[in-house]
Amino acid sequence: MSNLQEIIGAIAPIHADVVEQANDHLNQLTKPQGSLGKLEDIARQVAGITGEVKPLFDKKAVIVMAGDHGVCEEGISAFPAEVTPQMVLNFLHGGAAVNVLARHAGADVVCVDMGVNADLEHPNLVSRKVRKGSRNMAREAALTLEETIQAIEAGVELVDDLALKGYQLFATGEMGIGNTTASAAILCALADVDAEISVGRGTGIDDAKWLHKRTVVNKALHVNGLRPAKDDAIRTSGDFALEVLSKVGGLEIAGLVGVILGAAKNRCPVVVDGYISSAAALVASRLAPLSASYMLASHLSQEQGHAKMLEAVGLSAMLQMDMRLGEGTGAVLVFNLIEAAGKIMREMATFESAGVSRE
Amino acid sequence: MSNLQEIIGAIAPIHADVVEQANDHLNQLTKPQGSLGKLEDIARQVAGITGEVKPLFDKKAVIVMAGDHGVCEEGISAFPAEVTPQMVLNFLHGGAAVNVLARHAGADVVCVDMGVNADLEHPNLVSRKVRKGSRNMAREAALTLEETIQAIEAGVELVDDLALKGYQLFATGEMGIGNTTASAAILCALADVDAEISVGRGTGIDDAKWLHKRTVVNKALHVNGLRPAKDDAIRTSGDFALEVLSKVGGLEIAGLVGVILGAAKNRCPVVVDGYISSAAALVASRLAPLSASYMLASHLSQEQGHAKMLEAVGLSAMLQMDMRLGEGTGAVLVFNLIEAAGKIMREMATFESAGVSRE
Repeated sequence: MSNLQEIIGAIAPIHADVVEQANDHLNQLTKPQGSLGKLEDIARQVAGITGEVKPLFDKKAVIVMAGDHGVCEEGISAFPAEVTPQMVLNFLHGGAAVNVLARHAGADVVCVDMGVNADLEHPNLVSRKVRKGSRNMAREAALTLEETIQAIEAGVELVDDLALKGYQLFATGEMGIGNTTASAAILCALADVDAEISVGRGTGIDDAKWLHKRTVVNKALHVNGLRPAKDDAIRTSGDFALEVLSKVGGLEIAGLVGVILGAAKNRCPVVVDGYISSAAALVASRLAPLSASYMLASHLSQEQGHAKMLEAVGLSAMLQMDMRLGEGTGAVLVFNLIEAAGKIMREMATFESAGVSRE
Repeated sequence: MSNLQEIIGAIAPIHADVVEQANDHLNQLTKPQGSLGKLEDIARQVAGITGEVKPLFDKKAVIVMAGDHGVCEEGISAFPAEVTPQMVLNFLHGGAAVNVLARHAGADVVCVDMGVNADLEHPNLVSRKVRKGSRNMAREAALTLEETIQAIEAGVELVDDLALKGYQLFATGEMGIGNTTASAAILCALADVDAEISVGRGTGIDDAKWLHKRTVVNKALHVNGLRPAKDDAIRTSGDFALEVLSKVGGLEIAGLVGVILGAAKNRCPVVVDGYISSAAALVASRLAPLSASYMLASHLSQEQGHAKMLEAVGLSAMLQMDMRLGEGTGAVLVFNLIEAAGKIMREMATFESAGVSRE
């Protein structure tokens, strides 16, 4: 059995009995049943994940994985590819949006070089570089299967290490010029969606470049034998998800698949950021369907295919902020809501203790 | 000139030049322009409101106003009316959901008796009781014009006092069994919406009670001469908003209209909670159109008319949590997002300082 198969096999269902206990407690609190909506969903889910009715999350991390994309040769982004390494240094110096929002949430930023096309060195950079960027998917497979699995396993190992250090709550983040193009191709292949639906404006391209980006995605799907679409049984299988990830994915996306599987394996909740992170979540949910119950969606991004992507994973967004930055910026905002749900469980009065009549 | 007219006259437009300065700063930060979506909208808006590009909000309060509703006689709620005073005591003892979430947000809960149908005493209760509950709007006008204005002015004065004490950021909250019924009637009258759209399930009524609640709202509209709908010019006027508020509103709703006008008068942002708070926001926006630029929406409630209500005020929700509790629970969750926006303004690196290429 391969290492990846072992990892998948190590993911267990969440504790249904603890979900039930959390639900019983919620129904004793001074509010109409269910009236706190997704805060109650969060409370039940994290109870089931951790096995504790009222878990506390002391150490939180957003794992920001970076990688470059060969498909940038095709001219699909508003920003030049050199921005990927520049932004990695910005993360390491603490000046990017995700640094600010992670500090605000009391979370640490773990910055990982999965495949940046530059030589990067910094004491706080975690280097798991598989290669200097993916290949151009519009001409050939972006990654080999071996490279893809190496990236996934690196993500799992990283979470294993962080869990040993006491981190119990994770968020996914990424940086990689060109990675909305890869994510759109993943959505097309795994959810049988047209490029007209899946391809958005990324960091902000104009109409002409947008049309071109669709053409590039369609070309990548054909070159890699992913069109015409497979029938449902193949299309939704774990093997096919791995194939799609290698052919039209990217190294930071594969790394995030590993982060999500690693969180599930370690019984930790993982908050999924925007479009690219959700592409990783979609692949993870196909490789290991049980991993989906460890995921929490964060925001509905302005990237046009995001709603379809979340639907394919079976997640429902909590924030509607019209954000489209990535980095994990939407996901770290949700840490506050998870903590709010925890305090509801720990601090609210019950009907009995407060002497409030029931319906 | 009446006191209310003076209050309305004292509301000034927000500072357009400071909005522009905030926008210029946002466009220097290391992210694609506009990619932080509503976080950037918040940053611009609070800059325009306060006149400071990077304002800090040290003291924050959620003002929870309580009142009873004569229309409860018609049997429109899942909970008995006695729950209003019971929950007020729960707020005062710190055990309700809004207490927990306000503590989490570092905000104070200011609990105000605007018209609870019980004799309440507690050192922390702010008593501004106009009368013991509104009259049954299905039979007569819920309030006189004098009572309505008294309640609005009490809300304004409360914010004046809190602003003097250094509070600079407010959220609205409420408690009042029966107040989704009043809010639905307000939406019908002010936005020319049918009761089928405006009437929801409140704290959780069944189908039969839901149909009955619609009938009661329609009856209240007819009894009070609010159907057939007025033509646009009358329907959107300030005088008509005041008339509707008195005929089918309630004391806590009128008080919240005052809170919103008071926040605008004191150049403070005010976060609007769910359906009932949004009804108050709608009335405030008609009485004083300039007040709308001081409001921030919070969440889209599960109460079915809420999207229409927000649309009528011109607000866009940030949270989609399927909440339907009121109390200010959705609004206080947004304090965290406002602070996040402030930190983005204060802490993010610029393209120049971080050496990142632009598009």
